Amino acid sequence: MTQCFFEYATPKILVIRSKKVGTVNRLIQALIIAYVIGYVCVLKRGYQDTDSVISSVTTKVKGIALTDTPDLGLRVWDVADYIIPPQEESSFFVLTNMIITPNQTQSHCPEVPGLNCSWTCTSDADCTPGLKDVRGNGVQTGNCVNYNATVKTCEVLAWCPLESEEVNMTKPPMLADAENFTVLIKNNIRYPKFNFNKRNILPHITRDYLTHCIYNATTDPDCPIFTLKYIVSAAQEDFQTMAMLGGVIGIQIRWDCDLDMPASWCIPRYSFRRLDNKDPENNVAPGYNFRFAKYYKTANDVEVRTLIKGFGIRFDVMVFGEAGKFSIVPMLLNIGAGLALLGVVTVVCDWIVLTFMKKKHQYAEEKYSYVDDFGLLSETAE
Amino acid sequence: MTQCFFEYATPKILVIRSKKVGTVNRLIQALIIAYVIGYVCVLKRGYQDTDSVISSVTTKVKGIALTDTPDLGLRVWDVADYIIPPQEESSFFVLTNMIITPNQTQSHCPEVPGLNCSWTCTSDADCTPGLKDVRGNGVQTGNCVNYNATVKTCEVLAWCPLESEEVNMTKPPMLADAENFTVLIKNNIRYPKFNFNKRNILPHITRDYLTHCIYNATTDPDCPIFTLKYIVSAAQEDFQTMAMLGGVIGIQIRWDCDLDMPASWCIPRYSFRRLDNKDPENNVAPGYNFRFAKYYKTANDVEVRTLIKGFGIRFDVMVFGEAGKFSIVPMLLNIGAGLALLGVVTVVCDWIVLTFMKKKHQYAEEKYSYVDDFGLLSETAE
Amino acid sequence: MTQCFFEYATPKILVIRSKKVGTVNRLIQALIIAYVIGYVCVLKRGYQDTDSVISSVTTKVKGIALTDTPDLGLRVWDVADYIIPPQEESSFFVLTNMIITPNQTQSHCPEVPGLNCSWTCTSDADCTPGLKDVRGNGVQTGNCVNYNATVKTCEVLAWCPLESEEVNMTKPPMLADAENFTVLIKNNIRYPKFNFNKRNILPHITRDYLTHCIYNATTDPDCPIFTLKYIVSAAQEDFQTMAMLGGVIGIQIRWDCDLDMPASWCIPRYSFRRLDNKDPENNVAPGYNFRFAKYYKTANDVEVRTLIKGFGIRFDVMVFGEAGKFSIVPMLLNIGAGLALLGVVTVVCDWIVLTFMKKKHQYAEEKYSYVDDFGLLSETAE
Repeated sequence: MTQCFFEYATPKILVIRSKKVGTVNRLIQALIIAYVIGYVCVLKRGYQDTDSVISSVTTKVKGIALTDTPDLGLRVWDVADYIIPPQEESSFFVLTNMIITPNQTQSHCPEVPGLNCSWTCTSDADCTPGLKDVRGNGVQTGNCVNYNATVKTCEVLAWCPLESEEVNMTKPPMLADAENFTVLIKNNIRYPKFNFNKRNILPHITRDYLTHCIYNATTDPDCPIFTLKYIVSAAQEDFQTMAMLGGVIGIQIRWDCDLDMPASWCIPRYSFRRLDNKDPENNVAPGYNFRFAKYYKTANDVEVRTLIKGFGIRFDVMVFGEAGKFSIVPMLLNIGAGLALLGVVTVVCDWIVLTFMKKKHQYAEEKYSYVDDFGLLSETAE
Repeated sequence: MTQCFFEYATPKILVIRSKKVGTVNRLIQALIIAYVIGYVCVLKRGYQDTDSVISSVTTKVKGIALTDTPDLGLRVWDVADYIIPPQEESSFFVLTNMIITPNQTQSHCPEVPGLNCSWTCTSDADCTPGLKDVRGNGVQTGNCVNYNATVKTCEVLAWCPLESEEVNMTKPPMLADAENFTVLIKNNIRYPKFNFNKRNILPHITRDYLTHCIYNATTDPDCPIFTLKYIVSAAQEDFQTMAMLGGVIGIQIRWDCDLDMPASWCIPRYSFRRLDNKDPENNVAPGYNFRFAKYYKTANDVEVRTLIKGFGIRFDVMVFGEAGKFSIVPMLLNIGAGLALLGVVTVVCDWIVLTFMKKKHQYAEEKYSYVDDFGLLSETAE
Repeated sequence: MTQCFFEYATPKILVIRSKKVGTVNRLIQALIIAYVIGYVCVLKRGYQDTDSVISSVTTKVKGIALTDTPDLGLRVWDVADYIIPPQEESSFFVLTNMIITPNQTQSHCPEVPGLNCSWTCTSDADCTPGLKDVRGNGVQTGNCVNYNATVKTCEVLAWCPLESEEVNMTKPPMLADAENFTVLIKNNIRYPKFNFNKRNILPHITRDYLTHCIYNATTDPDCPIFTLKYIVSAAQEDFQTMAMLGGVIGIQIRWDCDLDMPASWCIPRYSFRRLDNKDPENNVAPGYNFRFAKYYKTANDVEVRTLIKGFGIRFDVMVFGEAGKFSIVPMLLNIGAGLALLGVVTVVCDWIVLTFMKKKHQYAEEKYSYVDDFGLLSETAE
């Protein structure tokens, strides 16, 4: 047994000296080795273990907008007015246009006609008391009242007066100035598997630079301060058009890091993309808007609210990426697989040798010996 | 050396002609090949590189609710009232039940007794001035005052009057109508590695269809508009029961895509699941609720607030999935490993041959030649 | 052909009996086998398929803070006051310090001088009517008015009075009591690939325990209730210092699960880390703050607001982790690659044998037979 331990088994090899086969043989070998080393290891970094990013984002918008509307008069809008809600996790909404319905109270008023006039009526009979329709604005009382001189609609209990439908959504949007707003985006990422943290405000950036810089893909790729207009146009959209009905823009931050390299090489790459569907064909409720209200109380303790249908652009900061770091397992996995592929060479060459070459019988004789189960020995070279 | 380049080395093979071993040999080979091709390549798509999804979600709830309470009277609730906050990133909260405490001001009032009457007192000695307990509602003044005819509790500086504890949480919840609300969910996904984008509103869906469709797993699996009741019951819950104390429901959107197939085959799959723990045994603060306030000012500039303890259902839209696309590395990795496994065949068969077959010695003689380090040649067949 | 099916080909082996080579041979073999079994399979669990977590988080903060400021007087702050917005998806913001500017109305007032006095002026000529500067607080009217006895600044249309700049940010922060607040974090995770769900409130935890427990890494690692102070100090920060200007803290919940083991072994691990950059060198707008406003209406229907610049700590709950479960593909992949690596042994040993051993020629003669394409047979042992 001990003797067996000191044995070393190596296959007997038949060496064929032939320009043709030899060349084929070397070629295929070269090919496979080139693939494993060049492609897998160098290009695809197959020797690396990977991890995906976890991230935290904070944003800070700056800017002033001036509006001049008949009902509001000259009005200045600042951050506290147009950022709703005041803070979110990794996105921010900028109000750009709105329908304001002030002084709503819980009372009765005629429903708005609605599309294809679903709420118009001629007599009370057309209205069903207590009907709460998902598309309606309130609970029907059962009365049919004058909506205006010509049209009668069912009366509803609701926040009255109702938000009017025929609003002039003509350019420019109310907060056309919003395009000049700037946003500071702070992003902190972590690759837990490698215990690696980094910020999008890179170490070499000075406080001084940050106070005046504005991101530009070519001139200032490291500045974390963006103008909304730049972001929107980088997403191939026109800000003023988009601001009318609102929309959703993705601010994509890609962190692809090779952690075998200096950490300073791991930097964020920004890209911008419109996320909502502006094509009206296969879409409903185009753009992006939502309703919110400011609640007041009158002197005589009646609750009054100002309803605002806010149209605006929501910016979603999407952080993604993959980090790679040398790891023994994936490397040996790829090398092992590569070696296995080398076995293919023999198969191919043998096939060539034993099929095409004129001296194939001699090769076969040399290569193969036969022994069979039927008592008689095979005609081997021995 | 050049000559060596044109050499081609192939192992010398001993072919054993035997029904038994031959069959075993072929069987194992077949098995391994079947596994590699059938299972790895076809089923598990081992030839694909994978990427995980990044997503953006917007939601829009529609619906009207009517409530009739002693303190509020007949009241209509619309989106601006029951969606808090008015917009979130990938989730939305629908208010279904609440405890309203109007007209709170900063003043002094008796603390509520609290569970196991921790705040009851008999004399001022029982109250510690300035005590701020995490479970209390205010800062104790040190006085012991009448909470009601029978009970005395420590006085606190707080938003008074305090939220009463004995509230009637009897069915139905205040906004029982919420079950009929509908929500439109827009989801935009991206597989960055493959630069592939898609929306859950599929290209073939028409605007017309979207205006009236309602999601149903069997009849309308592509409609992105859901009724809250459907969602909750799909998560095996009863809406009215859940609406009482609130809860959290996960709306799971799965995007599993084989990008070697037409993009149109890559469609979202919806599923629903309750995320919070309703089992009271190992749980605290069951359901889902949070407090928020509306702030008013009285004529004489005193700040007054209406405190609302809002119970409701939070719907978290969770988007996940994996996309696969042909890639040379994983494919060759699997093939290489497969080839390597074929090596196992020889090992197994040799073992059989050299152990069980009666002519094993002859085989051994044919297969092995010996040479040792001890000067004398081994007795080989040659 | 059928005969060929029953053939079994095995390479002819030359066995070299030599202490040296034999030992080397066995050593390398042992090494590779140890690696594949010990490292890949046992340590790295290479036989497992992995999936990454999807999660849902809800938080509930409790606590009371008392402030005593000249303009507000003695005031109690509860959850509804200091949590803004009242609920978020997987993070929560606790107000700790603020600059309050009450009774703002849309009107005219002198701009604040600003850093390096960019808004100071000597005559109207220095002010440009209609100028909306991103760093300004309003729209300039073109007049140069007295800011105070000594300084003149450009007049602006804005929410006046403006937020003053020289605010005393002296310790302690307004809501110093916040350090005693507690937060209950409920986390529900899912590994979709394995259809595995779990909560951070573990099954064995009783309702009773939850009512009084406080998380402590060593004594109470399973309690989901944290004091803010503990969280901040676990992130190597001082709460009172951080509360001054605010900041962002990451609450990291790691779910690393081996699903081949009992599910009860899969438990969350909490860790805490500061996410924002406190180093002023390469940072701008240090800390974390945002502006929000409460809107009121006066008796004569003028909109008035209280602007609050809120400094506070945002806690981001970051859930991550990886689950592994036995899967045939990765296992055979690793085994296959391992077998292939065994091929390396032969290469190495052959090289040793044929290079260093004194009887190398004899070995070569035994191992190799030659045949060439040039008509004449090679000088083989036969």
